[in-house]
Amino acid sequence: MIVKPKRRLPWLSMVFSISGSSLEDAYPKILSAGLFATLVTAMHKLFYSGVEETENWLTFEPFTVMGLAISVFLSFRAKATYDRWWEGRKLWGRMVNVSRSFTRQCAMMTSGAAALKSVGHGGVAVDGANLHGQETGAKANGMARIAARPAAHADEKPEGDGTGTGAAPTAGDAGEHVFPADDGTPPSRDAGDADAALSELGGRCGVFAREMALRQVAYVHSFRHHLRGSDPHADLHRILDAQETKAVLAQSNRPIACLQQMGLRLREAWETGHVNDYHLVHLESSLTEMTAIQGGCERIKNTPMPYSYTVLTHRLVFFYCFALPFGLVGTLGWLCPVTVLLVSYAFLGLDALGDEIEDPFGLDPEDLPLLALCRTIEINLRELTAAGRVPPPLEPVDEVLA
Amino acid sequence: MIVKPKRRLPWLSMVFSISGSSLEDAYPKILSAGLFATLVTAMHKLFYSGVEETENWLTFEPFTVMGLAISVFLSFRAKATYDRWWEGRKLWGRMVNVSRSFTRQCAMMTSGAAALKSVGHGGVAVDGANLHGQETGAKANGMARIAARPAAHADEKPEGDGTGTGAAPTAGDAGEHVFPADDGTPPSRDAGDADAALSELGGRCGVFAREMALRQVAYVHSFRHHLRGSDPHADLHRILDAQETKAVLAQSNRPIACLQQMGLRLREAWETGHVNDYHLVHLESSLTEMTAIQGGCERIKNTPMPYSYTVLTHRLVFFYCFALPFGLVGTLGWLCPVTVLLVSYAFLGLDALGDEIEDPFGLDPEDLPLLALCRTIEINLRELTAAGRVPPPLEPVDEVLA
Amino acid sequence: MIVKPKRRLPWLSMVFSISGSSLEDAYPKILSAGLFATLVTAMHKLFYSGVEETENWLTFEPFTVMGLAISVFLSFRAKATYDRWWEGRKLWGRMVNVSRSFTRQCAMMTSGAAALKSVGHGGVAVDGANLHGQETGAKANGMARIAARPAAHADEKPEGDGTGTGAAPTAGDAGEHVFPADDGTPPSRDAGDADAALSELGGRCGVFAREMALRQVAYVHSFRHHLRGSDPHADLHRILDAQETKAVLAQSNRPIACLQQMGLRLREAWETGHVNDYHLVHLESSLTEMTAIQGGCERIKNTPMPYSYTVLTHRLVFFYCFALPFGLVGTLGWLCPVTVLLVSYAFLGLDALGDEIEDPFGLDPEDLPLLALCRTIEINLRELTAAGRVPPPLEPVDEVLA
Amino acid sequence: MIVKPKRRLPWLSMVFSISGSSLEDAYPKILSAGLFATLVTAMHKLFYSGVEETENWLTFEPFTVMGLAISVFLSFRAKATYDRWWEGRKLWGRMVNVSRSFTRQCAMMTSGAAALKSVGHGGVAVDGANLHGQETGAKANGMARIAARPAAHADEKPEGDGTGTGAAPTAGDAGEHVFPADDGTPPSRDAGDADAALSELGGRCGVFAREMALRQVAYVHSFRHHLRGSDPHADLHRILDAQETKAVLAQSNRPIACLQQMGLRLREAWETGHVNDYHLVHLESSLTEMTAIQGGCERIKNTPMPYSYTVLTHRLVFFYCFALPFGLVGTLGWLCPVTVLLVSYAFLGLDALGDEIEDPFGLDPEDLPLLALCRTIEINLRELTAAGRVPPPLEPVDEVLA
Amino acid sequence: MIVKPKRRLPWLSMVFSISGSSLEDAYPKILSAGLFATLVTAMHKLFYSGVEETENWLTFEPFTVMGLAISVFLSFRAKATYDRWWEGRKLWGRMVNVSRSFTRQCAMMTSGAAALKSVGHGGVAVDGANLHGQETGAKANGMARIAARPAAHADEKPEGDGTGTGAAPTAGDAGEHVFPADDGTPPSRDAGDADAALSELGGRCGVFAREMALRQVAYVHSFRHHLRGSDPHADLHRILDAQETKAVLAQSNRPIACLQQMGLRLREAWETGHVNDYHLVHLESSLTEMTAIQGGCERIKNTPMPYSYTVLTHRLVFFYCFALPFGLVGTLGWLCPVTVLLVSYAFLGLDALGDEIEDPFGLDPEDLPLLALCRTIEINLRELTAAGRVPPPLEPVDEVLA
Repeated sequence: MIVKPKRRLPWLSMVFSISGSSLEDAYPKILSAGLFATLVTAMHKLFYSGVEETENWLTFEPFTVMGLAISVFLSFRAKATYDRWWEGRKLWGRMVNVSRSFTRQCAMMTSGAAALKSVGHGGVAVDGANLHGQETGAKANGMARIAARPAAHADEKPEGDGTGTGAAPTAGDAGEHVFPADDGTPPSRDAGDADAALSELGGRCGVFAREMALRQVAYVHSFRHHLRGSDPHADLHRILDAQETKAVLAQSNRPIACLQQMGLRLREAWETGHVNDYHLVHLESSLTEMTAIQGGCERIKNTPMPYSYTVLTHRLVFFYCFALPFGLVGTLGWLCPVTVLLVSYAFLGLDALGDEIEDPFGLDPEDLPLLALCRTIEINLRELTAAGRVPPPLEPVDEVLA
Repeated sequence: MIVKPKRRLPWLSMVFSISGSSLEDAYPKILSAGLFATLVTAMHKLFYSGVEETENWLTFEPFTVMGLAISVFLSFRAKATYDRWWEGRKLWGRMVNVSRSFTRQCAMMTSGAAALKSVGHGGVAVDGANLHGQETGAKANGMARIAARPAAHADEKPEGDGTGTGAAPTAGDAGEHVFPADDGTPPSRDAGDADAALSELGGRCGVFAREMALRQVAYVHSFRHHLRGSDPHADLHRILDAQETKAVLAQSNRPIACLQQMGLRLREAWETGHVNDYHLVHLESSLTEMTAIQGGCERIKNTPMPYSYTVLTHRLVFFYCFALPFGLVGTLGWLCPVTVLLVSYAFLGLDALGDEIEDPFGLDPEDLPLLALCRTIEINLRELTAAGRVPPPLEPVDEVLA
Repeated sequence: MIVKPKRRLPWLSMVFSISGSSLEDAYPKILSAGLFATLVTAMHKLFYSGVEETENWLTFEPFTVMGLAISVFLSFRAKATYDRWWEGRKLWGRMVNVSRSFTRQCAMMTSGAAALKSVGHGGVAVDGANLHGQETGAKANGMARIAARPAAHADEKPEGDGTGTGAAPTAGDAGEHVFPADDGTPPSRDAGDADAALSELGGRCGVFAREMALRQVAYVHSFRHHLRGSDPHADLHRILDAQETKAVLAQSNRPIACLQQMGLRLREAWETGHVNDYHLVHLESSLTEMTAIQGGCERIKNTPMPYSYTVLTHRLVFFYCFALPFGLVGTLGWLCPVTVLLVSYAFLGLDALGDEIEDPFGLDPEDLPLLALCRTIEINLRELTAAGRVPPPLEPVDEVLA
Repeated sequence: MIVKPKRRLPWLSMVFSISGSSLEDAYPKILSAGLFATLVTAMHKLFYSGVEETENWLTFEPFTVMGLAISVFLSFRAKATYDRWWEGRKLWGRMVNVSRSFTRQCAMMTSGAAALKSVGHGGVAVDGANLHGQETGAKANGMARIAARPAAHADEKPEGDGTGTGAAPTAGDAGEHVFPADDGTPPSRDAGDADAALSELGGRCGVFAREMALRQVAYVHSFRHHLRGSDPHADLHRILDAQETKAVLAQSNRPIACLQQMGLRLREAWETGHVNDYHLVHLESSLTEMTAIQGGCERIKNTPMPYSYTVLTHRLVFFYCFALPFGLVGTLGWLCPVTVLLVSYAFLGLDALGDEIEDPFGLDPEDLPLLALCRTIEINLRELTAAGRVPPPLEPVDEVLA
Repeated sequence: MIVKPKRRLPWLSMVFSISGSSLEDAYPKILSAGLFATLVTAMHKLFYSGVEETENWLTFEPFTVMGLAISVFLSFRAKATYDRWWEGRKLWGRMVNVSRSFTRQCAMMTSGAAALKSVGHGGVAVDGANLHGQETGAKANGMARIAARPAAHADEKPEGDGTGTGAAPTAGDAGEHVFPADDGTPPSRDAGDADAALSELGGRCGVFAREMALRQVAYVHSFRHHLRGSDPHADLHRILDAQETKAVLAQSNRPIACLQQMGLRLREAWETGHVNDYHLVHLESSLTEMTAIQGGCERIKNTPMPYSYTVLTHRLVFFYCFALPFGLVGTLGWLCPVTVLLVSYAFLGLDALGDEIEDPFGLDPEDLPLLALCRTIEINLRELTAAGRVPPPLEPVDEVLA
């Protein structure tokens, strides 16, 4: 998405600045139309200078009708593509909302060990280890894993490298690898007063909420990769442990797999009594909302406007812009190319803009800033649950926010 | 739906390529209008060449008004038909969503025997048989049937061929017949590492969730057949057993019958204590959502735009295109047919496009790819529950996705 | 609603066929405008033939502005009236949905005696009578009445004719009278294999669900009569017993009274323990949805578009069509009436169409097929619950579906 | 809202009737424009009769552009104001719906003493008094007050006039004062058979539902007064008792105070065990829906369209209509004023209509009939709960429904 | 938002008044266009007076097409920006609704000590202190803090100044500092009869509801500051105590932190048994609704319309207005600048209006009155819960409501 440093930049500069208008695709076509008009005008001057115009050249009248018809069609297409773009933004807005709400719900609706609060501001006891000890006898596959996943994890894979499993694959991207350090433990940065204040709220949510918040972050990242066709491996590994990452990557629809895992995790919490019957329904509703959001985005991505409509509009605009010189040259002479340029700019520019925002999840300059939205979610959720180092907000590069 | 291999195909080629524009219906009309215009021009040249035009031929002015009026009408019709098409897509998008959510809900909200997890990655004990044994004494018609349907099935129809009942009718379509092999048992393909990873998530959901996911797949297939007026027999038989297929096929609205069966199945699970009171409500809400989606699609299919409106638009476009030569021939001479062609292309093309997408559930090139969507749902649900062989995604044929 | 036998009827025939376009109201006006234009042209020929036109006759230019202004206004009105028509259809679509869902919910969420399944395919024990016997001691006004209403009914009105009460008033409309025979008893038609299959699904729902489904059918019929101002007596009597019919007919808003009765019936089931607390809320939500649908339809019916807007549009169209000859006659001569006819057809036709679909619940040809929708609901619900003889779908009469 | 006695009144009469078009505000402006055009034409005839027009008078061409631009703007404004008007109507439609649903919910979801049904058709025992006796010992502030409010009321205010408190202040508006007589007691009109049938349904709901229905009626009346800025005192006093009326009137937002009281009343019923936990949530949801409706109406009332937009449109229409003569007089001569009148009628009329329906809750002729809607709600709720004398529906006065 | 003292101000004065039209940004551009047109006309008069125009100057015809195209584009942009503005208003309307509903829900759905009603009208016992005493033994961190926060607070921070903590930081803004005095205690203003009536309703809600209402007020204020980029410190401090204010201010998204605190507070009430399982879900749903509203507003604020579209429109309008003189000067002469002024006013004015309302949460004259809305919420909530001094409604300054 193109971001301008100041919203109210001088009007004239907006009119004349070339860069950042993201209509680059349209310029060759506009210039072609202008050149063609120049050619037609030159031909007319050479060969028909003294000839009576009637019968040989078009008048402008049919172009009036066609021009307005095309305006109406283009306006409809602009509306429809803008609606797609805006609906995409709305869906991601809902994703932001549901991420925040789901985190709060997890913090509110777990009880017992899973909800053990870290006491106070600075040093927090390693809840996970303690809980693991308390719970081991109860159920091998249940709450213990929730409370202290890395440890329980080691139990489940004794054949593996018990200590390094979680950390090893992600050791490469230092600075991004936040999970092992913050699983159940608020950040141990040199705790200044600001940090203490920051972690005061997050410190009150339970370890289960912290874990689910991180899963949620993993989900939105994997969903972004799903929409943009990029590789989710790095982001998943940074947050989830190796086994879960592998299970998710094995499925064809990774974000749905993430949601399924979150659901099964909630089920474990429910079975072990840390979430009650009614609250499970409420928490699941948030997962359903995420599923709906994801389906909506996939719909926009996979179903463009009917192709015939796009072709029809393209063709009409094309023929109009290249036939226009014949209608104008008889009256305007050398001003014909200028007029054609202006009209082409309007029609071809709007047409190109429609093409650009029709699929709002790509990496075109005007596409939605999915990465920035994911980052926002990650910042919010980590702050709310005191779950590891909070990354900085994404900054636009060359006035474009990715 | 027409699918182009690359989204950003060269603009010029889009303008000139004939194929794939799905406006074939409109071409005869456009050419007729062009021919008629040629005829009128020829007549005019022959008989009125030296005559004063006033009084005998129309001027273009009334065509300006009419042309714009028609643009406005066509734009409204384009908007309305596009809204129908897009609403149809949204409804099917919601169907994808609710299918995924319902599967997750079933996995999350069953307890007891119905939720028994297959333990681990590779070989899984035949849960069905075991459960059947455990439950036989409890309730004849209840949970046992859920957990191990084919077996319980044999019990219920002792007069039939106890062994072959489920398998026989579907033996024909090898490669599609997935149910008997995977009822309660994850696929026993040569379990490479990739397969193990794939089934790791699905293996954790219970047998009831697996069964309901397959019913859901059967539902969406039967719904597709319902919308397209095709025969659901093969798809139902591939997934459901013979008795249920028969019961569904006997009703006039087959998808609704599928939903009713799913509801009664959930009721059985509730009565036997595997689903609790609150969760039953939540699961039923997903069935209600499916009912709503189905009703929405039936509405679009059965209620076209008011016929009078369509007729009015058709007539106006027709008379306009065939009266246009009389208004242009006096001024433009032999350029009149060219202009008429261009204008006809705009108006008749948009009119034809409206006709095509008005009913979005058919098999026209621009209609919605219901088969591909059903396939997507089947892939997702089978992967999530490790329920049998996962089919490949549907590929477009001649750039058209069915 | 006008229904065409084939969707893709030949385009030309659609253009020229007079019948079925439902614009009959507009034809007199269009012809008047044409005649007036002829008169004006004749006058012009007679008296102004040799006179210089300036100063005496209008030019076409102001008509360009006015014509487009009127197009824009008409387009807005067409949009608004179409939205009303389509919203009406959506509301009835939701009614179809909620009817199906409510029936499934009743089948799923009742327990105990009220949910006793009819066992098997062919002959079913008279559940009603049995239940009545079992329950009589428990509560006089409660579940017994639900399970076997006609019988309990006789108990409550000992002063009446105990045997004939339910049957007598409806004996007249043979072929429609379905209730007494199927109250709790699946149809006893000569049970071929097809019928057995049909009743296999419906036979599994309980008697309470069957009763509620019939009440639901009564509700939608009474709602249709409410919207169309017709007499609901016959349809209510066909389905409900005499006492309830009387109570409903006594109220000014009959459909709301039906809903109230359904609610009180659910309350009885809840009080007697056949519906639990949570499920009562879920079932009530369906009644709330029906109330919302009904209110939406009443809104569309009782609140037309602002009258001033309609008057404004009517007047502008009228003055435009009758002033147009003065603007055209100077230029076009005898072609003026033809042009006026075409323009009048566009404007007056669209205006008349707006009038017709503004109130979509009437009996105009383009109005919504409420009777067919009610029939669809009745078919679905009777099939799903095996509640009596299933009527055939409604067929269009003269291409119009009522 | 303007109501026409027959929907299909003769078309011509609609065109020519002056009254009832509610465009009275626009007439002075339209006539001014016409007079100004006459003046300009006269001046032109006097001074420029023989002068060459070029350079001195405008041509019509710029007016073509401006005229269409204004059409587009006006159309947008018409759409936006109509949407506001229609959204207001939708909100009030939802108010009707929620009132009916809430009444049914109260009837369905109370148990124990509060739900005691009045037995039968004619004479009903004074439930209130009995209940009061039964419950007195239990809780001073609880269910007793619900069941027999006036009596319990006397208990709470022993210092007041125990008998006349409720009745005295409302004795003045005889025929409207319904509360004291029908608190818990179905109407004791000379109970003919029709009345018995009418009260048969209402008699089965409990006293609590009856009370809440009356509170609901009080709420909608106070909300209407709130929107129209009128005095709610009379209507509140007619339905609520003196103490509650006083408490409500003391707050700045009276309808919200009514809702708060209904909520606290429900809480009392919940605390005393007459409403259970889950049903309290469901009942509260209806109050939330009412709050949402109220907020929506306040939004429309308090936030007109951006003022700048209205000013811009007003100015453009004004300058256009008063500049038009200069563009037409050169061509049309004495037909110029007629044309200006027609164009002004279109533009100024649409502009005035936008002004009128922008705030749909006032008392302009085209505003929504809030009083009629409140009356409808009162009729429905009183019939459904047999709560006192049912008022007749509101009739339009001079074709305007208030 | 611009507020006019009387809605129906004289039409002419609206046309001619300069002030308050908030189009100031557009005036320089409009005047520039007018001056440029004057210059062009003067040049034309000087140099081309006797020259034949053909070939040298544009005709008006292309401007007709372009003008209408621009109208269509501007109309779309006006629609889209107005939709953003109106959606922003809708979101804040929902915020008003949910604030009122949440307050009512808190009053309805707490039981035990937290819901202790203040008895009667005038003097109320200091519930907080009493409750604190009762509850101290039960749970250190639980309900006691809810019931009597300032006191419990002192317990938690013994190192701080036990008495002055809450009051000190806010002593500066006398008249705004309402919290310490009204925490749990209805206002002790000289209790006239009016005040008694006012506090009669609020006095019946519990101390927990009162506390939550104040938190809600803090939330909406901090959300307003969040949207407008202003400093929330004063408003937060005025309502919350110092520790909570600090914790909220430490987070990057302050309103979300407020919601999280409200959620954790509800959790405490739930854990201590003052809110039951089902009601917790219902209360949390209101927080989810607030999260959704906040996300919607952030979406509108952070995502303007695609920049390319804005640039395209700006450029087309600019070039049109500055090229128009060349098309008009040949025909109109000295009337050309006047016409250009009128056209520029329409196009540049609408363009500027779009810029202004595109971000509706700023402080431009036409932006939404967030401060007034927050004040409304504060008034409503304080009156409903008798929570401290009720501030007066906000008055517009210079006809602008902030």
